[in-house]
Amino acid sequence: MIKRDLEICFSPALYEPERLAGSIVVVIDILRATSAICTAFENGASSIIPVGTVPEAKDYKNRGYLVAAERDGIVLDFADFGNSPFNFTREKVSGKTIAYSTTNGTGIIKMAASASDLIIGSFLNISAVIKWIAARERNVLLFCSGWKNRFNLEDAVCAGAMAERLMATSLYSTVCDSAKAALDLWSIAKDDLPAYIEKVAHRSRLREKKLDDCISFCLTNDYTDMVPVLKNGILVRSE
Amino acid sequence: MIKRDLEICFSPALYEPERLAGSIVVVIDILRATSAICTAFENGASSIIPVGTVPEAKDYKNRGYLVAAERDGIVLDFADFGNSPFNFTREKVSGKTIAYSTTNGTGIIKMAASASDLIIGSFLNISAVIKWIAARERNVLLFCSGWKNRFNLEDAVCAGAMAERLMATSLYSTVCDSAKAALDLWSIAKDDLPAYIEKVAHRSRLREKKLDDCISFCLTNDYTDMVPVLKNGILVRSE
Repeated sequence: MIKRDLEICFSPALYEPERLAGSIVVVIDILRATSAICTAFENGASSIIPVGTVPEAKDYKNRGYLVAAERDGIVLDFADFGNSPFNFTREKVSGKTIAYSTTNGTGIIKMAASASDLIIGSFLNISAVIKWIAARERNVLLFCSGWKNRFNLEDAVCAGAMAERLMATSLYSTVCDSAKAALDLWSIAKDDLPAYIEKVAHRSRLREKKLDDCISFCLTNDYTDMVPVLKNGILVRSE
Repeated sequence: MIKRDLEICFSPALYEPERLAGSIVVVIDILRATSAICTAFENGASSIIPVGTVPEAKDYKNRGYLVAAERDGIVLDFADFGNSPFNFTREKVSGKTIAYSTTNGTGIIKMAASASDLIIGSFLNISAVIKWIAARERNVLLFCSGWKNRFNLEDAVCAGAMAERLMATSLYSTVCDSAKAALDLWSIAKDDLPAYIEKVAHRSRLREKKLDDCISFCLTNDYTDMVPVLKNGILVRSE
C-alpha cells in the first residue's frame, strides 16, 4: 500500500501553498480560535465566517451579524464577544452565523482557503478529525497558527498528537522534520499535558490578561464530534 | 541578577531582525556549512567570505579566490570544492581566504550580518561558543538555518544543546517557545545523537547523494576551540 504524506507547518511564515495541491489542511490554533470554533458548532452555530481584518469585522457588525473579534486576546470594542470558547454558548450562537476575527487563527484559515479541503482541528474534536481524515486517504498538512508568525508550542503539541494517531492508522508516513519534532514534543507532553502547557509563552500572555480560565477546557479530548469544514469561504459543519 | 534573554529562530522565514538589537546571533547549519567553517578555521584558514549567490561565487573564482560552493549538496562546477568539512584540509586552506556559498547557511549569515555580533556555531565548537557568549552576558539568538526556509531537526537539536548549556550558566532565561521546544528535542536526542540524526530529512538527502560520510564527524563535540566571528562582512577567528 502506498502511504499518504503527513506534513506539519509550524507557522504561517513557513506555509508553502504550492507544495500542497490536493492535500487536506487542518488549521490548529488551540489557544483559542480553533477550540472556540469547535465549541460554537457543538453549541449549534450554523456557520462561521472567518474574517481577516478589523475593518472587515466591523463591517459585518454594521450589517447585523453576530461578531466575535479580538486582537492579542482583547475583545474589540464593537464586537459581541471575543474568542474564549466560553463565549460561544448555546444561548448566544445556536442557529446563528458568526463573523469571527482573531489575532492568528482566522488569518491562516483565509491564507489556506485554496486548499482542496480545509478543516478545523483542536483537542476538542481530535478523534473526529482523525476519523474524517482517515476516511479520505489523502495527503495531510497540519497547519499550526503560531503566534504572530512565530512557532508556538501548544499548537505543535496538538499537531504531534494528531500525527501520532494518523501514523498509527498505517495510512500515513512522513519525511517532514517538523512532523518528527512535533511527535517528539507530544511524546514528552502527553503524560501531563496541563503541566506541559504551563510553560508555553501564550499561557503567560493569557494569564497576564486573565484570559486563561479556558485553557484546561481547550486541552479536553473529544468534547465534540463536529469537524468544521470550509465551503466557499465559510466554515460549516461537515456532512 | 537580571538574566539575559535566550531565543531560538528555526528558519530564515521566521527571522525578525527588528527584535534583536544588541543581541549576539549564533548561526547554526550543522549539516554542513557551519561545521565546515569551524573545520576550516581549525585547519588554519585566515578568513571566509560568505557569498550569497552563485554568480557572486563565480566572480570570486574569476578574481583568484579559493571558492567553496554548493547547491543542494552538489559542488558547483567552477568551485574548488563543496561544503563537506573533509574538503577543508590544512593543505588546502591554511593561510587562505575562502569565498564560500551554500544552499542555506551562508545566506543566513548575510541575512543576519547586521547583528551586533554574529558568530558561527556547531557541535564542533560548542564549548567555545558557550564560553564566548557567557563572557559577554548579552541577549542571544540561536539562528537555525533550516532547509530552504523549512524547519530542520538537526539544527534545532544543536540549538537545544547550546540552550541547555546557556541556561545552566544561570545567566540566561527564556520565554521563547522555540527555545523550550529545542530544549525538549535535545533532551530526547542527547542519549544517542547519531541514532536521532538518522531520522532527519537532510540525513536522507545527503545519503541519496552519497554525501553522508561526514555526519558523525559533524556530531563531534569540541573538535576545535575556534569561534568564527563576522567582522565587516568577513568571517575571521575570534581574538
